[in-house]
Amino acid sequence: MNEAVESGEDRLIARYFKPLATHPGAFELLDDAAAIAPPPGCDLVLKADGIVAGMHFFPDDPPDLVAKKALRVNLSDLAAKGAQPLGFLLTLALPAEIGDAWLTPFARGLGADAAQFACPLLGGDTDRTTGPITISIAVVGAVPHGKMVRRAGAKPGDRVVVTGTIGDAALGLLLRRDGSAAARWALAEDQRDHLANRYLVPEPRLALADGLRAHASAAMDVSDGLAGDLAKLCRVSGVATEIEVTRVPLSTAARAALAREPALIETIITGGDDYEVLACVPADAVEALRRQASAAGIALTEIGTVAAGQGQARFVDARGKPLALAHPSFSHF
Amino acid sequence: MNEAVESGEDRLIARYFKPLATHPGAFELLDDAAAIAPPPGCDLVLKADGIVAGMHFFPDDPPDLVAKKALRVNLSDLAAKGAQPLGFLLTLALPAEIGDAWLTPFARGLGADAAQFACPLLGGDTDRTTGPITISIAVVGAVPHGKMVRRAGAKPGDRVVVTGTIGDAALGLLLRRDGSAAARWALAEDQRDHLANRYLVPEPRLALADGLRAHASAAMDVSDGLAGDLAKLCRVSGVATEIEVTRVPLSTAARAALAREPALIETIITGGDDYEVLACVPADAVEALRRQASAAGIALTEIGTVAAGQGQARFVDARGKPLALAHPSFSHF
Repeated sequence: MNEAVESGEDRLIARYFKPLATHPGAFELLDDAAAIAPPPGCDLVLKADGIVAGMHFFPDDPPDLVAKKALRVNLSDLAAKGAQPLGFLLTLALPAEIGDAWLTPFARGLGADAAQFACPLLGGDTDRTTGPITISIAVVGAVPHGKMVRRAGAKPGDRVVVTGTIGDAALGLLLRRDGSAAARWALAEDQRDHLANRYLVPEPRLALADGLRAHASAAMDVSDGLAGDLAKLCRVSGVATEIEVTRVPLSTAARAALAREPALIETIITGGDDYEVLACVPADAVEALRRQASAAGIALTEIGTVAAGQGQARFVDARGKPLALAHPSFSHF
Repeated sequence: MNEAVESGEDRLIARYFKPLATHPGAFELLDDAAAIAPPPGCDLVLKADGIVAGMHFFPDDPPDLVAKKALRVNLSDLAAKGAQPLGFLLTLALPAEIGDAWLTPFARGLGADAAQFACPLLGGDTDRTTGPITISIAVVGAVPHGKMVRRAGAKPGDRVVVTGTIGDAALGLLLRRDGSAAARWALAEDQRDHLANRYLVPEPRLALADGLRAHASAAMDVSDGLAGDLAKLCRVSGVATEIEVTRVPLSTAARAALAREPALIETIITGGDDYEVLACVPADAVEALRRQASAAGIALTEIGTVAAGQGQARFVDARGKPLALAHPSFSHF
């Protein structure tokens, strides 16, 4: 006999994740798959990104913020592509010691973001692992047919713009790893908190997605460092860019740290986890995009220009002297 | 200066995974996301499932077969839902010791299945982990609008059918864990190979997807054991089912093992990893579905009936006596 027996995984899903599955096509996570009707006339924009404890976050990071980071690194890609989210799939691999104390705030954080960004949970899978917490999220978004903003598409004469501020997350990570850095950089408590939070919780720039679709010739999100990601964009666009380092937007905290330790410019320019949008925009469209960003409360800064070339991404100082970068891009490999 | 420098991850993706990204909307994996136009009039069917070394496969399993299993467990869900695949996203977390020797056959196996099942790689992410190899795949499929075959929908009077044979993978796993089992069960070499292969490489029944959409009132794939999965289907359909254990289709190898060790019936009925389709079909449609299955080279066996109820899944022997199952369903939790 086998009457109405629920497995442990079923109970876990029902308790923590069913409340996040608000889309009717998620069938309350009681089916094998979700079914959603794509918006008419739209392409799907698909992206998957995983985060691993000890690699992308610290095992003792607040679980609600870990959840937000896992979702937001994907939403950041949708934003840069000019797409709006439809929903996401989640696969979790959890060590044996992970229980209610972690899952409750994890699901709470994930649910808050799913609601805030109109990106419901559509399905997924939860497994045990002998390794670290591993969270993989696949997001599905939509753009009008043929309108996804590509990395390819930048043209000579375009301006290079970036949202928000650059380098905060990389400095926040340095603070976590080097307890003496905060004192060395003479940071105030709110400055330390700012940098730490920027590492913990990215801010996906979805409010700028429509503006990017209207105005950008190319865009991507900055996840592996401004220098390396810009170089990727230049390669697939077949252009060169020149960035004036002094124009790269920095937070008050980053400016304070940089004033004490000028060598941090390399960390700022090449460090990962910014999750800002980097875009190339025709010169006559920069102001319109800036206004749309401003209306959405997002700073947009022009940092350089696009020229003919074969993938060069040059960073120059105030006197036009090229900056030498030892490690232009972050990579786990 | 930062000219055309590629990161290690970029090289890894270009070398192993770009050849699998045959869909034009995957942009050769050189963009942040894929863009695909959904087929007109269709719903998207979305599913994500992960497999972890030491949990779902053995660390020394052939990497090409690990890749196939990772994709096929997801394709099996699409098949049961009546959907055809559009493509998939892959997130990999790899220990430091994983290099060419593993990645080359892994990518080869994945590419072979992507081609065979017309399910191209659309994007993904590769990271390092201090834990075991962790592979997460999200598949996107399509069904005509509103036509996804649900778990809910079984009606009293329907017949319960199942594809292929049941229990092989669970016995194959037992063989891997217990070296003496093959001798105890007096299995021939080809019987051992059959069971071992059924654990290693599931066979997604995509050729039956259209038939299920036409004829099934409810369906799911059997991944956590026939008994437990049938109980899930019964619960969401709000019905009871009675299965005649003697009608459950077994391979020659499973029959041989069962003849020597009758207690294996519990492993067969409740073990996981079958990846066969379990469906409920109106009595007058069984023959039509069986013909469609037969034309596709898939065995389809009627194993029981649906009655009014509240989620009961009873297994009875040839004399109608209920089978007692100690652990009706597999769960990692």
